[in-house]
Amino acid sequence: MEFERLLASRHHFMKASEIRELLKLLDQPEVISFAGGIPDPEFFPREAFQRASAEVLTQAEPLQYSISEGDLGLRQQLKAHMADLGVPCGVENILITSGSQQALDYIGKLFLSPGDTALVESPTYLGALAAFNAYEPRYDRLQVQGNQSPEVSTAAAQAAGSCVKFAYVVPDFSNPTGETLGCGAREALLDRATTLDCAVIEDAAYQALRYEGEAIPSILSLELKRTGDINRCRTLYCGSFSKTLAPGLRVGWIVAAKPLIDQMVLIKQASDLHSPTLNQMLVSHVLSEGFPAHLEYLRKSYRERRDVMLNALTSYMPDGVHWSQPEGGMFVWLTLPPHIDGAALLKRALEQEKIAFVPGQAFHADGSGANTARLSFSCGKPDSIREGVQRLARVLTAV
Amino acid sequence: MEFERLLASRHHFMKASEIRELLKLLDQPEVISFAGGIPDPEFFPREAFQRASAEVLTQAEPLQYSISEGDLGLRQQLKAHMADLGVPCGVENILITSGSQQALDYIGKLFLSPGDTALVESPTYLGALAAFNAYEPRYDRLQVQGNQSPEVSTAAAQAAGSCVKFAYVVPDFSNPTGETLGCGAREALLDRATTLDCAVIEDAAYQALRYEGEAIPSILSLELKRTGDINRCRTLYCGSFSKTLAPGLRVGWIVAAKPLIDQMVLIKQASDLHSPTLNQMLVSHVLSEGFPAHLEYLRKSYRERRDVMLNALTSYMPDGVHWSQPEGGMFVWLTLPPHIDGAALLKRALEQEKIAFVPGQAFHADGSGANTARLSFSCGKPDSIREGVQRLARVLTAV
Repeated sequence: MEFERLLASRHHFMKASEIRELLKLLDQPEVISFAGGIPDPEFFPREAFQRASAEVLTQAEPLQYSISEGDLGLRQQLKAHMADLGVPCGVENILITSGSQQALDYIGKLFLSPGDTALVESPTYLGALAAFNAYEPRYDRLQVQGNQSPEVSTAAAQAAGSCVKFAYVVPDFSNPTGETLGCGAREALLDRATTLDCAVIEDAAYQALRYEGEAIPSILSLELKRTGDINRCRTLYCGSFSKTLAPGLRVGWIVAAKPLIDQMVLIKQASDLHSPTLNQMLVSHVLSEGFPAHLEYLRKSYRERRDVMLNALTSYMPDGVHWSQPEGGMFVWLTLPPHIDGAALLKRALEQEKIAFVPGQAFHADGSGANTARLSFSCGKPDSIREGVQRLARVLTAV
Repeated sequence: MEFERLLASRHHFMKASEIRELLKLLDQPEVISFAGGIPDPEFFPREAFQRASAEVLTQAEPLQYSISEGDLGLRQQLKAHMADLGVPCGVENILITSGSQQALDYIGKLFLSPGDTALVESPTYLGALAAFNAYEPRYDRLQVQGNQSPEVSTAAAQAAGSCVKFAYVVPDFSNPTGETLGCGAREALLDRATTLDCAVIEDAAYQALRYEGEAIPSILSLELKRTGDINRCRTLYCGSFSKTLAPGLRVGWIVAAKPLIDQMVLIKQASDLHSPTLNQMLVSHVLSEGFPAHLEYLRKSYRERRDVMLNALTSYMPDGVHWSQPEGGMFVWLTLPPHIDGAALLKRALEQEKIAFVPGQAFHADGSGANTARLSFSCGKPDSIREGVQRLARVLTAV
C-alpha cells in the first residue's frame, strides 16, 4: 500500500524536529547537558499533588466527562490570576487547554488557511512553528525591536495571495533567547498589529519565572488599557502550568475575546472533547493550597542557577563569545564568533568534553543563526553548571 | 475588531453541536434522560485509581514531560491486548491519544486536505463528523450492507477534484444505532477499500462491551490475515478506555502501520506534545490490577440495563415503532412511523412526560432520519429505564 498518496498536503510541512532527535542521543551519563529546557522535577510540588489526588478521587467527578470550556473552579482561579496581571476578564474569556502547545495548535486551527501569513521572530519557539506548520502558512519575519514597517508585511502577504493573520511572540524570557520585550516594544507591536488588523499571540509560558527587576505588563493588559473591553482585544494570551507546577499534567489556558474563545471551544470539542477532568481538578486543588509561596521557591531556586551560569560565562568564555542576560526563564542565548558553526561545535563538545547544548540554527525559520546556541540552566546543580560552562569554554578556546 | 475576517476558512464547517446544546437543557431533576450516552460513574473503578495515584505519585515521573508516542509500559500492555484481539503488532504500531476523539482529529489531520472525500455511514457518530469537519472534507455515504459500488464513490470524488481518503465505521454496537457489522460486511468493506485504495478507520470505542454472542473479529485483524504484516494494512484501529475505565482521564490509542503512526507522532508532538504522563501511568497501573474482572462486571451491569430497556420496549411501544437489538454498547435506535418527527416528539416528551432522548436527524450527514431517535440505557437504574420507556410509549401512543 502506498501511504504517501493518501496523506493530506500538510504532511510536507510536518518534519521530525532535529532537536528532539538530537536530544535522544544525549541521554548518557557523564554528559553535562544544557540542551534540555524542561523544569527540574525536584521542584515539582509532588506532595501537594499527592494530597490533591487523595482528596479529589474521593468522588467520581474527576473520572467523568466534563465540559469543553474547562473546569469552572479552575477558570475562576485563573480569572483572579489574570486580574492580578492587569487583565480583568470573565470565565467565558478563558479556555483550558492541554498545555500551551495545544493553545498554539488551536490558534493555528482558528486563524490559518493554507498560504495565510504568520509573523514570527527569528529565532522563535520551535514548537510554535511545528504547531502552525500543520495549517500550511507562510511565515514573514517579525522584528519587534526597531522600525519594521507593517506595510512591507502586508504587501508580502498580498503578493502571496493572502493576508497577515497574527504576530506570534514570547515576550518574557523567551525560548530560545531568554530576552524580554520592553514596554515600548510591546506598545509598538500593538500599533503594528492594529495597522495590519491582525491578532497578536502572546505566549506567556515563562512569565511567572522572573528573577530580578519589575514585571513588565503583559501585551493583553496593555491592549486592555486601550480598548477597555477584553471582547474587543486582538491579543490572545497563552498561559501554562508546565513551568510552574508540572508539565506532565498538560494544563494550560488561553485568555481572549469571547467570540474567539467560543470558536476555540468548538475546536476543543471536535479535537479531544475536553482536557482531562482529573488534571484540571488536581491543578485547582494545588493552586488553592497557595501558589505564591511555591512560585517564590521556584524563582529563588532557578535564580541561583541562572546566576551561576552567567558568572561562569563571564569567568570562562573566550573573547568573541556573547550571551543574553535573561531576567527570568530557563535559557541563555550564546552568539559565537561568525566562523563557528553551532552544530559542528556540538559534535566536538560532546566528543571532547561531554557537554551538550542546542545549536541555534533550528530556531530560525529562515535558516540563519548558524553561529548561535541555546543553553538551559534549569536542570543543573550549581556545581554541574559551572563545570559545564568551563568545559564548553575549553572547546571554544581550542577552536 | 472584525474577528470573522481573520478566521480560517474551516470555521464555516465548525458549528456548535445541536445535541450538546440540547443536553444542557435536560439537566433537571424529575426528567428521565435516555439522551446521554456516557458511562455510569458508579461503575468507575475509583478505588483502583485511588490506589494507583497513591502509588505513582511517590515518584516525580508522572508530573514530568514524556515522549509523544506514549508511555512504554502502557503500550506494552496494549500490544498484549491487541494480540488477544487477533492483532499482533509492535509497540511502534501504537500511539496513545487523549481519548479516541483525538484519534479521529489526528486521522482527519493526517489524511484530509480541503475537498478530499471521507466515506461515512448515515447515521454515524457525530463526534467523528465534528473532528473531520475541521479539515474541510466532502462526505460520501458509505453503505456497508448491500452492494454499493466503489466506482460510484471514486467517480463522485473525482468529479469533486479529489479522491477518497478513508471509510469510517463504528463496527461494534455503533453510536448511534447499537448495530454491529457481521464478518461478511467487514470483509466486503475491506474489498471495497482495496478497490478504492483508501484507508479504513475502525472506531472500536464500544468493542469491549459485548453482552451476548461471539465477538466478531476486528476489521484490522481480518486485514492482517490478508496481508500478514501490520505495516501493510490500510486499517487504523481506534481504541478507548473511556467506556471501560474512565472518560475523564482521556486515554485512548491508535493501532496502525508504522509509517502512519510515525506521521501521527509528529502530529501529536505539534499539537499537544504528549498525552498527560500521569493519566497514562494511572491507566497502566489499574490495568495491571486486572482488567478482565472489571470488564466482566461492566458487561453484567450494562447487560441488565439493556435487557430492561429491550423488554420494556416490547411491552409498551405502540405498533409501528421499531428498534435495534444491540448485542452490546450503550444505545438502542428507534425508528418511528414516517410521519413522526423526532425533534417535535422530544419537545412533547419533555413537556408532557419529562422524558428525554436524542432525535436522530443530527446523526445523518445528509439531513435524513427525521423519524429516528437514539436511546441510551447506560446511566439509568432498571426501574427508571422501565418507567422512562413507559412514559415515552405514552407520548407516542398519544401522537
